[in-house]
Amino acid sequence: MSLQHSTRPVRIVRFDGEAAPKAVDDSVAVEEPLEIRVGGRSVAVVMRTPGHDRELAAGFLVTEGILQKPEQVLDMVYCRGDDATPEPNVLDVILAPDATVDLERLSRHVFTSSSCGICSKASIDAIRLQFPALAGKTAPHRAVLTALPDRLRAAQAAFAQTGGLHASALFTAAGELMEVREDVGRHNALDKVIGRAFLDGRLPLADHVLLVSGRVSFEIMQKALAGGIPWVVAISAPTSAAVEFAAASGQGLVGFLRGARMNVYAGTLAD
Amino acid sequence: MSLQHSTRPVRIVRFDGEAAPKAVDDSVAVEEPLEIRVGGRSVAVVMRTPGHDRELAAGFLVTEGILQKPEQVLDMVYCRGDDATPEPNVLDVILAPDATVDLERLSRHVFTSSSCGICSKASIDAIRLQFPALAGKTAPHRAVLTALPDRLRAAQAAFAQTGGLHASALFTAAGELMEVREDVGRHNALDKVIGRAFLDGRLPLADHVLLVSGRVSFEIMQKALAGGIPWVVAISAPTSAAVEFAAASGQGLVGFLRGARMNVYAGTLAD
Repeated sequence: MSLQHSTRPVRIVRFDGEAAPKAVDDSVAVEEPLEIRVGGRSVAVVMRTPGHDRELAAGFLVTEGILQKPEQVLDMVYCRGDDATPEPNVLDVILAPDATVDLERLSRHVFTSSSCGICSKASIDAIRLQFPALAGKTAPHRAVLTALPDRLRAAQAAFAQTGGLHASALFTAAGELMEVREDVGRHNALDKVIGRAFLDGRLPLADHVLLVSGRVSFEIMQKALAGGIPWVVAISAPTSAAVEFAAASGQGLVGFLRGARMNVYAGTLAD
Repeated sequence: MSLQHSTRPVRIVRFDGEAAPKAVDDSVAVEEPLEIRVGGRSVAVVMRTPGHDRELAAGFLVTEGILQKPEQVLDMVYCRGDDATPEPNVLDVILAPDATVDLERLSRHVFTSSSCGICSKASIDAIRLQFPALAGKTAPHRAVLTALPDRLRAAQAAFAQTGGLHASALFTAAGELMEVREDVGRHNALDKVIGRAFLDGRLPLADHVLLVSGRVSFEIMQKALAGGIPWVVAISAPTSAAVEFAAASGQGLVGFLRGARMNVYAGTLAD
């Protein structure tokens, strides 16, 4: 895996304690869709870090019970676009003539939309366009964000600490905790927060801030946008696709929120 | 969320430095499948922590673009089994008579197998039975496992540290590093490792140990079993479904591997 494949430079604003914020160069882990095809038929789109794509496609098909022997695979080739250049996000697994596989076993991760997976940008745009970009958003104050992790931890103290749960917490722009949900799946924790607000008739969640305990993937940003949440703040790192999605959808994105330190990947905070 | 829903007691063997190992009571985060139905039609099975299931189902359908207004939902009820007792892992979203939804929008997470989601045990059995349980496994030495995290970190030092990548590393039982792969998706990192071995004709990976940088879910154990890997070792926590899967499939499972400390959730290590 080459470095340019697995990481991507980003320009961020870093708040480091009481010093003035600085615009600095940083890097994020690359997250892009890979469409896996078998004999030309699209079977899955997975969000992955580019590199070792043939291994990923083979391993995915093995662990899904589709492939059993390497002899079943004749070749794996990137599809070619209109200008005959290889498309690095669409990989076709060409089966040996005598290989028989049961694609009906594929039970998960299967996109049915044929519009996905053309390329990274088209695919992400297709998903983003399900939900309109935010027209505008209130900028939360930096001091409000700094206080959020402690409030999350205080709310979590009521739960047993197994080290195995992700948390998603919804705050008002003033920093008042509205909801916190925990789940082994980070997407589930967010779905529960949005589901609660939906059932209460409180969507879209304009002027709210979402705090997540872990990393921020593309899908977290997409779910936040579906709930109308303008700001996503994380204890840990965002991916490249999360940063790009935030910029395209008008969302603010903050990562590595630790004490008075934080990295702003999209949007502008109030002082 | 009640404590008995989100965590589950497990009996583990804890190695704590040089002291003798102790069998102790511990707890893990609960991971169980929830089958989401809309008007009786199965649309998804998600692995989740029980609790707030109605919020999860609603939030999932909102963020997938299926539901827009709470008035579209008439009720959400757990399905009832043959003896009329509610089945806590199958939730049916009953739509209002005038609600129209487009289930074709559902693009991901969709199980097509009707055998899944009957209940936790049946569902996990159905997936496990894709791959036979391991007939036997060599017990790695405890001292071998202790050395693995440093070897992983040394191999990762070649990559930029963005804080956003999961790692999966394959070792021999003697502790020799065979492969390490990184990805924003933990499942992808493992698929790449297994895919490499598959393409090299090295499956099943008997007598190997898999080290993962993060948490161990049910799906990680299932993928390891598909690759024939008998031992899964993690820096962080396993879920309840991972522990149950390991026991049922004859796999060994070690968590919280930090220095000379580790928790053994399934299997027996050599001294």
